[in-house]
Amino acid sequence: MKSFSDYSALVDKAIKDINYPDGELASLYEPIQYAMSAGGKRLRPGLMLMSCEAFGGDASAAMDAACGIEMFHNFTLLHDDVMDNSDTRRGRPSVHAKWNTNSAILSGDTMLTLATRLISKVPDSRLRLILDIFNNMAIRVYEGQAMDMDFEKRDDITKEDYIRMIMDKTGALIGAAAQIGALIGGASEKEAQEMYEYGMMLGIAFQIQDDWLDVYGDAYTFGKPIGGDINNNKKTYLLLSAMECDPAQRKALVDAMALAPGETKVRIVTNIYDRLKISEISRKAVGHYSALATAALKRAGIPEENKELFRKLTDKLTGRKI
Amino acid sequence: MKSFSDYSALVDKAIKDINYPDGELASLYEPIQYAMSAGGKRLRPGLMLMSCEAFGGDASAAMDAACGIEMFHNFTLLHDDVMDNSDTRRGRPSVHAKWNTNSAILSGDTMLTLATRLISKVPDSRLRLILDIFNNMAIRVYEGQAMDMDFEKRDDITKEDYIRMIMDKTGALIGAAAQIGALIGGASEKEAQEMYEYGMMLGIAFQIQDDWLDVYGDAYTFGKPIGGDINNNKKTYLLLSAMECDPAQRKALVDAMALAPGETKVRIVTNIYDRLKISEISRKAVGHYSALATAALKRAGIPEENKELFRKLTDKLTGRKI
Repeated sequence: MKSFSDYSALVDKAIKDINYPDGELASLYEPIQYAMSAGGKRLRPGLMLMSCEAFGGDASAAMDAACGIEMFHNFTLLHDDVMDNSDTRRGRPSVHAKWNTNSAILSGDTMLTLATRLISKVPDSRLRLILDIFNNMAIRVYEGQAMDMDFEKRDDITKEDYIRMIMDKTGALIGAAAQIGALIGGASEKEAQEMYEYGMMLGIAFQIQDDWLDVYGDAYTFGKPIGGDINNNKKTYLLLSAMECDPAQRKALVDAMALAPGETKVRIVTNIYDRLKISEISRKAVGHYSALATAALKRAGIPEENKELFRKLTDKLTGRKI
Repeated sequence: MKSFSDYSALVDKAIKDINYPDGELASLYEPIQYAMSAGGKRLRPGLMLMSCEAFGGDASAAMDAACGIEMFHNFTLLHDDVMDNSDTRRGRPSVHAKWNTNSAILSGDTMLTLATRLISKVPDSRLRLILDIFNNMAIRVYEGQAMDMDFEKRDDITKEDYIRMIMDKTGALIGAAAQIGALIGGASEKEAQEMYEYGMMLGIAFQIQDDWLDVYGDAYTFGKPIGGDINNNKKTYLLLSAMECDPAQRKALVDAMALAPGETKVRIVTNIYDRLKISEISRKAVGHYSALATAALKRAGIPEENKELFRKLTDKLTGRKI
């Protein structure tokens, strides 16, 4: 087996080789090509290929489905950026900022159907099972996004609500990527279910790590300006953990959230986090979900020599090797 | 076999019986229930059930897929209404007007996946074929919508361009409904392909009839105010036909299009249409595509006694029985 970055590079090449119609349909397909060429870690499709080979399959058998899962992920980004009014994505203008909202909606819709078509390019014997996993995952992602938007308007969200939301919005997709890869590679349904669990737990750990990086990372490694979540009063794992402390600190946080975005606001909130040891609490949660991911991996019955690659991926995504 | 309105009523009941999650996910599913309960002719799912029984199948076998095709149709309406900034739909506020744009986007996405899931509830032996037909149809619909939006900005559109666009945007979906119904009912791939052709030609005839009704119908039967397309300078079959006449009339039309929306504008454009016999030209086109639909029906090999229902449907949709 290869390393995660080899699988990631393989799928990156396949994605760049996708041919889109041009001519009078350029207005529909150019935003798709633009979004798909933005790069990134290719976490979901890379994990799918790795999961396929871990069970004895050949990565090439999962390549279409891997491109499909990345297409689906990028479709959600196009529509999320419209809904969240985010004008940048991976350091470039987002699709609705570069073209317009209508392009982002219609090209996004097209990507969802293209994704379904790519995901369907699996052996007949596993088509229904894989299609069901994909569609059920997609519904969870929309429900997670609906919850996320709903949470913005509420002030009674707990850490538990948050975990439930990111399980749907982030975890389900990473889980399905690992599960579908395993099934294409020849895993049993039970083994593939454990790989779903691995991806789900990895996704939760990864999201909390992402929340942590927004405050405690450095802008270069993180790829985004530090403190963005704080300035947007985003209900992250860190903020919700801090809110669960004594009422005096909660009051201080609520006051800080009322401040205008800027360095002062970021510094004040970070100071409260520091006093409450929120960094340590978050790192502990990342460790907790990483351990659950590793436990699922053990149950999945992957040959010992192949497990190491998944453990390395967990470490990489949860910052132990940064 | 039953009549079209019986099939339409059957599917209407099945659609009303769909259960959606509620509670904290109400914000996601209420717009879906609202859109699906708006009624309408249920043309596409009714045609699917009728096509299924015409080949000897039982309508119940196609009920899930029929609900899926109507779910897909309504998904396109939700997103189209956002893109076209249309605040009403079937006499009620459209979803983005009643809720907001984000709801229309996310609930629409959910409907596309729910549609795919419903369409997949067909026998294993026909799953891949039906799924491919559905996905390829969906891509055509998006491409048709992209062309439609593109046409708005251009002034060199011909009647031929227009037919090509409505084949994608309107015809492909009605065609796929008939084709999938036939396949579930036991038709051969070739027979089902002819039913696709029937639906495609019916769709073109229906759209031109719809364009005609906007000018020459009455508001009650049409369900929309008369002259809406004229006031929006919409490039309909009527306008494009009129544009193909001598330069003097073209100039008069272009001048009229520059007028502010209102009764005067509608009267002036209608007068030009009358002088150019655009009503007769359009009715002739409706007749032409209806005849092509009937010819496809003959080739499809439906038992003679079942063909009559499809001919009646064609007549109903193309206004010969209004």
